[in-house]
Amino acid sequence: MKRLGMAMILFASVCYAQQTGSFKPSETNVWGSDYPLVDDAGRVQIRIKAPEAAKIRVNFWSGPKVDMVKQPDGFWTVTTPPLVPGLHYYTLIIDGAEVADPNTQAYFGGSKPASAVEVPEPGSTYYSIQNVPHGQVREVWYFSKVTGTWRHALVYTPPDYDTQPNLRYPALYLQHGGGEDETGWTRQGKANFILDNCIAAGECKPMIVVMAYGYARRAGRPVRDMTNVEFGSPEMMKAMQESTAAFEDDVTQALIPFIDSTFRTQPDRNHRAMAGLSMGGMQTFQITLNHLDLFSCIGGFSGADGSLVLSGRSLDPKTAYNGVFSDPAAFAEKVHLLWLGVGTEEPENMREGIRKLHRSLLEANIGHVYYESPGTDHEWQTWRRDLKDFASRLF
Amino acid sequence: MKRLGMAMILFASVCYAQQTGSFKPSETNVWGSDYPLVDDAGRVQIRIKAPEAAKIRVNFWSGPKVDMVKQPDGFWTVTTPPLVPGLHYYTLIIDGAEVADPNTQAYFGGSKPASAVEVPEPGSTYYSIQNVPHGQVREVWYFSKVTGTWRHALVYTPPDYDTQPNLRYPALYLQHGGGEDETGWTRQGKANFILDNCIAAGECKPMIVVMAYGYARRAGRPVRDMTNVEFGSPEMMKAMQESTAAFEDDVTQALIPFIDSTFRTQPDRNHRAMAGLSMGGMQTFQITLNHLDLFSCIGGFSGADGSLVLSGRSLDPKTAYNGVFSDPAAFAEKVHLLWLGVGTEEPENMREGIRKLHRSLLEANIGHVYYESPGTDHEWQTWRRDLKDFASRLF
Repeated sequence: MKRLGMAMILFASVCYAQQTGSFKPSETNVWGSDYPLVDDAGRVQIRIKAPEAAKIRVNFWSGPKVDMVKQPDGFWTVTTPPLVPGLHYYTLIIDGAEVADPNTQAYFGGSKPASAVEVPEPGSTYYSIQNVPHGQVREVWYFSKVTGTWRHALVYTPPDYDTQPNLRYPALYLQHGGGEDETGWTRQGKANFILDNCIAAGECKPMIVVMAYGYARRAGRPVRDMTNVEFGSPEMMKAMQESTAAFEDDVTQALIPFIDSTFRTQPDRNHRAMAGLSMGGMQTFQITLNHLDLFSCIGGFSGADGSLVLSGRSLDPKTAYNGVFSDPAAFAEKVHLLWLGVGTEEPENMREGIRKLHRSLLEANIGHVYYESPGTDHEWQTWRRDLKDFASRLF
Repeated sequence: MKRLGMAMILFASVCYAQQTGSFKPSETNVWGSDYPLVDDAGRVQIRIKAPEAAKIRVNFWSGPKVDMVKQPDGFWTVTTPPLVPGLHYYTLIIDGAEVADPNTQAYFGGSKPASAVEVPEPGSTYYSIQNVPHGQVREVWYFSKVTGTWRHALVYTPPDYDTQPNLRYPALYLQHGGGEDETGWTRQGKANFILDNCIAAGECKPMIVVMAYGYARRAGRPVRDMTNVEFGSPEMMKAMQESTAAFEDDVTQALIPFIDSTFRTQPDRNHRAMAGLSMGGMQTFQITLNHLDLFSCIGGFSGADGSLVLSGRSLDPKTAYNGVFSDPAAFAEKVHLLWLGVGTEEPENMREGIRKLHRSLLEANIGHVYYESPGTDHEWQTWRRDLKDFASRLF
C-alpha cells in the first residue's frame, strides 16, 4: 500500500480541523492544512513538524524574522506580530536550510518556490473572484530567435473574447519582478480577477494582458559561470544588463509579433501598453522608451528607470532616452499615459528613488500619474492597487 | 537594499556553473540552480545548504531513500543509484521536517508542493515541446452548485481551435491522481505536448482536454474534523467516498455543462471520453459507468474500479454497475473504448488488481485494450505512455 496511500492522503483536502478564536486558515494553504492561520489583526500562526530540529526561524521577506518554539509533540509553532493586508512571502530556515513551508501552496519568488500567507484586506473585493464574467488565462509557447528557445507566456483574454469573434482588443504587457516569473501576476497578483472585476464595473476597457518570462540569454551566448560572482558586484550588474537587453529584443522581435498573429489584438502603438513591478518596471522603462513606435502607455510599479531609481541620480530630460523628455508637448502627444507608483512603507532607497523621478518629471513638465500606496511595502498589495488604477486609465 | 536584492538574485537565471562528466542539471530545476544533476545512467546528484543540520535524508517516493552526507562547506550532497526514465517526486527530510528541495520547481503531489527530477528517456520526443503547432492550456473558473464554490480547471484547446472557428471538437476529461491537482497532467504529465505531437503526426484527432480539480465537498456540508482520523481507516475511506460522490455530481451537473457552453465541443456521449490515473482512474470508472448517457470512452491508468482493484475482489459482470457488463455485445455498442493500463514495476497490489480486472473482462467477453508499460512504476512515465496510446484510439 505504500504508494497507494497517496490516493488517500489528499482526502484531508475536504477536511479541516476546527479552529478557535478569529484565527482562520490562510487562503494560500494547501487543502487540508490548518496552518498557517491568520487572525483579524493580521497575526500569523505557523506550525511545522520537525522532531529532530535544533532551530527553526520564520523568515518573512518583508516582515518579521522570528524563532519558532518546539512543542513536546515534535511540532514547532510561532505567532507573528500583525502583518499588513496582502500576500507575504516567507521561508523557513531549518537548521540552516532555507526551505518552503509544505503547508502552503508554492509561489515562485526569490528564484525558488516560496511560501506565502494572505492577510485579507477588509472590504476589498477587487482582487478576489466575484460573480462576474471571467476571462481566461492561457498558457502559450512561442519560439524566439533571439534566445533560440521556446518561451512560455501567460495571456489573459477578457470575458467576451470567445463570444465576440469580430472584436479586436488592446494589449497590456505586464511584467513580474526579480526572482519571480510569468506566473506571479496571476498567482500572487490576481491580475485576472482585478481585470474581470474592473471590466465588469465598466472601469476598464476589455483588454488582453500578456505576462512573459522576463529573463533571457541570447542564442549561442555561452553560459556564464556565476559560481564565484559576488552579489551586487559589477559582474552581476553586467549579467542583469545583458539579460534585459536580450529580453528587450525578445519582446519586440519575437513576443509582440507572436501575440499579434495569435490573438485578436489591435496591433498598433495606440493600443499597446507595458507595465511592470520592481525589475519589471525597470525593464518597462527601457523597452517602451526605446520603442515608442510600439508602445503608447507606460507603467512603473515600484520600479522605473534602472539607472536612476536605485542610484539616486537625477533625470536629465535633455539627454535621457535620446531626449524624449526634452519636449513636454511632444511627449504628451506621443505617450498617452506615464504612470509611477510606490508603497509608502517600501525600503527608503526605492521610495526615494521613485519620488525623485516623480519630482524630476514635474520639473521637466512631463505629464504623468503618481500614486503612493498607503501602508504597503515592496510587496504584491502595492502592485494589485497599482494595476487596478493603471488599467482603469488605459486605452 | 535588502529587498531590492531580490531584483538581482534571479540573474543567476541565465547562468549556470560548469559541470563535468555526463551529469547535467535536471530540466525541473529552477533557473540558475545547478542541482539536482542527472547523468546518462539516470543517477541523480542532490545538494542543499544546511550548515547546522544533523541529518538529511532524500526521500524518492517511488525510489531510493538515501542519507545525504555533510561536506565541510555546509552543503549536503548525495548521488543516488540509477533511476528509470521519467519524472520522480521527492522530498528532503531535514532533521525530521519533510520539505521540498528549493532547487527544483514545485510539482503538486502528496497534497503539497513537492520536488522532482526528470530522467530523460533516450529517443523519446513525444512528451517534450517540438517544432509543431501548439495548443493552448487555458485556466477557467466555473461556479458549481454542487459544492457552492468557484472551481478551477485547465482546458487544453488544440492548435487550430482559434483559427477554425466553425469546427467543433470532441472532449477528453482527464483526471490527476490522489494528492495531486488539476495542474498535474500538464506540469508533470506534459499532456499538452503529448497531444500537440500526436495531433501533428496525424495519430490523434484534434480534441479538447479538460483537467479538473478532483476533490469536492458538497455545499453546506460541515467540514470534517480529521485531526485524529487514522490513515486508511473506515472514516478516511468514508471521506474519500463522499468526496468522489460529490465530484461525480460536480462533473455531470456543473463541469460538463460549463465546458459545453464555453468551448466549441461536440456535446454528446459519442464525442466525450474520460480517463484518469490512480485515484482519477477509480473516479473515471465510477463516473462514466454510472453515466453512460454522457460518456462513450473510458480509460483507467493504474487505477480503475475502486472497489475491485485494491480489494482483490473479482468483477461480477452480472451485478457490477447495474449489470452493464452482462451483455458484451450491448456493451461494445455503447462503450467505444475501454482502456486499462499499469506499469510492470508498480506495487504488487495495484499491478495484480489491474491484471485481475483485465482477466475478469476477458472472461466476461468485454472488449477492451490492456497495456503494460515496461519497466515503469506508479509514476508519470507510465501515465504519459498511457495517454499517448489512449488518445490515439479516441473518437
